[in-house]
Order: sequence, then structure tokens, then C-alpha cells
Amino acid sequence: MTAPICLVGIGKIAKDQHVPAIAGSADWDLAATVSRAGTVNGVPAYQDFAQMLVERPEIEVISLCLPPVPRFDYAKAAISAGRHVMLEKPPGATIAEVQELQRLAGEAGVCLFATWHSRMACGVAAAKDWLAGRNVLGAQIVWKEDVRRWHPGQEWVFEPGGMGVFDPGINALSILTEILPEAVFLRSAELEFPENRQTPIAAKLKFSGNVSADLDWRQEGPQTWQIKVQTADGDVILDAGGSLLSIGGEAIDVGENREYPALYDRMAELVQSGQSDVDLAPMIHVSDALTLGRRTIVEPFHF
Amino acid sequence: MTAPICLVGIGKIAKDQHVPAIAGSADWDLAATVSRAGTVNGVPAYQDFAQMLVERPEIEVISLCLPPVPRFDYAKAAISAGRHVMLEKPPGATIAEVQELQRLAGEAGVCLFATWHSRMACGVAAAKDWLAGRNVLGAQIVWKEDVRRWHPGQEWVFEPGGMGVFDPGINALSILTEILPEAVFLRSAELEFPENRQTPIAAKLKFSGNVSADLDWRQEGPQTWQIKVQTADGDVILDAGGSLLSIGGEAIDVGENREYPALYDRMAELVQSGQSDVDLAPMIHVSDALTLGRRTIVEPFHF
Repeated sequence: MTAPICLVGIGKIAKDQHVPAIAGSADWDLAATVSRAGTVNGVPAYQDFAQMLVERPEIEVISLCLPPVPRFDYAKAAISAGRHVMLEKPPGATIAEVQELQRLAGEAGVCLFATWHSRMACGVAAAKDWLAGRNVLGAQIVWKEDVRRWHPGQEWVFEPGGMGVFDPGINALSILTEILPEAVFLRSAELEFPENRQTPIAAKLKFSGNVSADLDWRQEGPQTWQIKVQTADGDVILDAGGSLLSIGGEAIDVGENREYPALYDRMAELVQSGQSDVDLAPMIHVSDALTLGRRTIVEPFHF
Repeated sequence: MTAPICLVGIGKIAKDQHVPAIAGSADWDLAATVSRAGTVNGVPAYQDFAQMLVERPEIEVISLCLPPVPRFDYAKAAISAGRHVMLEKPPGATIAEVQELQRLAGEAGVCLFATWHSRMACGVAAAKDWLAGRNVLGAQIVWKEDVRRWHPGQEWVFEPGGMGVFDPGINALSILTEILPEAVFLRSAELEFPENRQTPIAAKLKFSGNVSADLDWRQEGPQTWQIKVQTADGDVILDAGGSLLSIGGEAIDVGENREYPALYDRMAELVQSGQSDVDLAPMIHVSDALTLGRRTIVEPFHF
């Protein structure tokens, strides 16, 4: 049996990922959308969130895929109206506001799910299982993509709170914090800010435990989303954003990649069991990098 | 009876505050110092922390007043050696490293005290008590001081991790988060970075709940460290860094200001009762401001 769900923020990520994931799910029925301009064929479309909340009391679950800065007010309104809430990553523009949402959700007795879609990449669980209990000697993230290709014209990613290269980089950090058997913390960071932008376009991070990350949003040609982890028993390599896995040089069959469908499966489980799932670790690493990082100014960036 | 304590990092704040506070305490005896150059008259001085830990097993408590960036390694070494640890504010250079210290202290069964000296200002407890249960309508922090006067030549405050104007500003935030009956979170921030520096010299912060902060490190002449809180029953004004209190226009007698002595009293209680005290809220607000803030470049700053 399917339950009605409302999707808020019908932009690129909603159309590319959320709408197909919901359409293919046995748990969910896309019963309404809320967006300034975007709509989904055949689905009742609202522009006013408060109106939707009042007119559609049968919709108990709201999935928010707005950019992080405006998201808090929607999440708070949804929780106040007694609805369960799913948050696209990152779960907010600040750590303190997500802590406030946790408090509000707890008070209201609703589920809050701060999603990290890359953690659902098909190689991640197997990598985590294999690393559990092993002694990690070091790890390297290389996450290089072309912002023009993945965020065409999305000026907000370079505005305060848009996180710049940490918008994709937090995906890598969400995998890292999932698979490593012990937590690491940032030691230093170098951040490259385009002269005309508020957020970094590239970052090099050094963590404790010989863990590093090289993030760049100016990568044309082949795109790289790779995490290598060294152990005494061999290396784990997650490639293609976590969807390809090799251990000790041997490719592992990890099945089909279904990140967003898996998020919606998980939300169904959370609602069923009355639990929340909010892990701030990836966001804390980004805040730490923006707090501790050394900034250099690089050439202006234009879409 | 006094217990031996070791002070690490004999710089300005140690000499101005920690040494006199320990000297005046009935709980503590300054039994050793560790510092590259600084010493305290009549107290055994070490340059090597590991050597002190080995040679002075009777010293069970270590107070770290180094700058935040190098502090983690000292704290970890102290905890690994089974010592209780007091951290000057802020408790670390990153949130994740303080979480790691909490984990390590828990494992080792030692006390960790992340101090916020301004919370011990003599007006703070009375302000908190009066505000408890009241409906706060808004609050304004004005924290303006002269960095040349309070941090003469201390280049590290403008280096990554040195926090710039948030070094004093976090004192205001530590009071705010102590006295407000409900948590707030950052909505937006404007940060002024000197052209030749890595950290901001001024910041304007807007929080939820009509709370704002105006921080400036270029204030010559009279210095301002004030927090005003509005309620339907009248306004609370903490002035002079929290040492003067008025409520509804009436000055309240809050006794003598003794921030650092009160921190050392508190550490004695924590060690006695086997508890830790680590509140990251002030640090999270600073990280949030550096993550979400809009940066403008202002004229170079030279000491």
C-alpha cells in the first residue's frame, strides 16, 4: 500500500532524482508538489506551502529539496503541522538550525530524516562492512567535477550558505564518515574562493589519521568521485561516487545503484518505526573546513 | 587541601588570569608549567609536555591555555596519560576535534572541562535565573573592543583557526547561550575580513528570535561588552562583559567579578564528582557564522 507524500522545491534535483524515485516506489504516492514555478505532470501543484498543509491533511510526509538556506522555515512549518520530514542534503544552512529541527521534531513526535544520498550508493555498505574492525592506515578523497555541468546557472551554490565545492564534497564526506571505523577530524584546509564569489570552488583538506580530501569544481572532461582507504589487508576503492567497489584490487559486485530509491525506502522504515535519523558529522566537517581553512582568492568564476 | 595542577601555555592570558586565579584558590597549587618561553616565578618550568607528564605523576589536572590550533595534541596527550583536562575557550580549532576529545575523555574516565570564562561573570547567573521561564522578545549583543589593546602583536588571532573578532565575540555568545531560556540559531551574517588577514575583524550576526550581534575589533576609546534582552516584564542589561546587571532599569548587586577563580572552583567540583562539562553551543554559532556569513574585504590591518 502506498502512502501520500508531498515534494517541495521542484528544481533540477527533484526532477532528476526525487520524482523518479517516488514514482518507482511501492511505499509512496506523489500526492502534491509545492514550488514557485516547477510542477510534475498529473500531480496537484501548490505554490503556497501553508495552503497545501491545510488542504491536504492526508499527506503525512513532506520531502524538502529546496536549497539549504530557505529550507528551515518549511521544515519548521511541516513539523508544526505534525508532518514527518525528509531533508535533502545538507540538512540546513547552519548546524544550530538542524539541532533546533531535531528538538522540534522530538517535541512534536514526528520523524526527521536528514538524508545523505551518497551513503546509499551501492558500494558503501559493503565497504563499511569490510572496514569494520580493521585498522585504517589512511584515506584519500578525490572529488572533482564540473559545476557548469551539474549546477548549470545555479547561482545560489556560490551565495553564502550555498557551500560551493562542498555541495558535492559533502557527499564524499558523508561516505567517509559512514565507512571509517573511527572518526577523524580536520587538521587544516586550503580553500580557493573565486574573486567574485562567496563560497569556495576548490578545497584541499587534511584530517587526522592520514585522511585527505581534494575537492575541485572546475574539472572538465572525465569526472572523478573516488575514495581510497588503505588497510594492512589491502585497499578499498570506492569509485564513481560510491557505486563501484574494489577491495585488494578485486572488483566486488555490489548490484545496481539506487541512491534516491533507497532514501525513500529508508524514510518508509523510519515512519513505520517512529524513528528519526539525523547525523550531522558531514556538515560539521564542512563547517570546520570553512572555520579553519586558509583562504586564497582565485580568478573569477562565471557560469 | 590543595591539589597540584599544571598550567600549559604561559602567555598573556595565563599570566593575567590563570596564575592569579590558581594562586588565590584553596583547591589548587600551581605545581608545574609547560611553555616554550614563559615561566612563573618559583614554579618548576618544563618546555617538554611529555617529559612533565612522565616526571610529575602526582599532577592529576592539566589546564591548557594555548591557542586553539595546537591545543588538541596536548589535550589528547594529557587524557592518554590519565589526567583531567581544562580547556581555555574556545575548546578547539574544530568542532569535530572537541567531539573526539569528549570521546577520549569518556574512554579514559577523566574529566574534560571546556571553559567559557564569560559565563562566570558575576551578572550572568542572576540574569539567567530571572529570564528562566520568561518570554524573550529579542536580544542585542554589542561587543566592541580594541584588538591592539587586548591582543598586542598576537598574530595568531588573524591566522586560520584564530577566529578573529570571534575570539572576543564567542565570549558574548557563551553568555547568550547560557542566559536565554530557548536556543536560537544564525539566520545570516556579514563578515569583514581585512585584505591581509584570514579571519574577520568585524561581524554582524542575525539570529532567530530577533537576536542580533554587532562585533567589532577596531573600537578605540571606551570598550563595549553589552547584552540587552527584552521581555514583557522589562529589559535585562548585562554590561562590562557580564559583570554589571540591570533589570527593568534597576541596577542589581551581583557582587565581585571573579571569572577565572570561578572556573577553577568549578574544575575542583568536576574532578570531585567525576563529571565533564563540554558545551559546544558557542563554538557552533561561530562555525555557523563563518559558514553562512557574507564576506566583504576591508582595509588591511596591522598591529
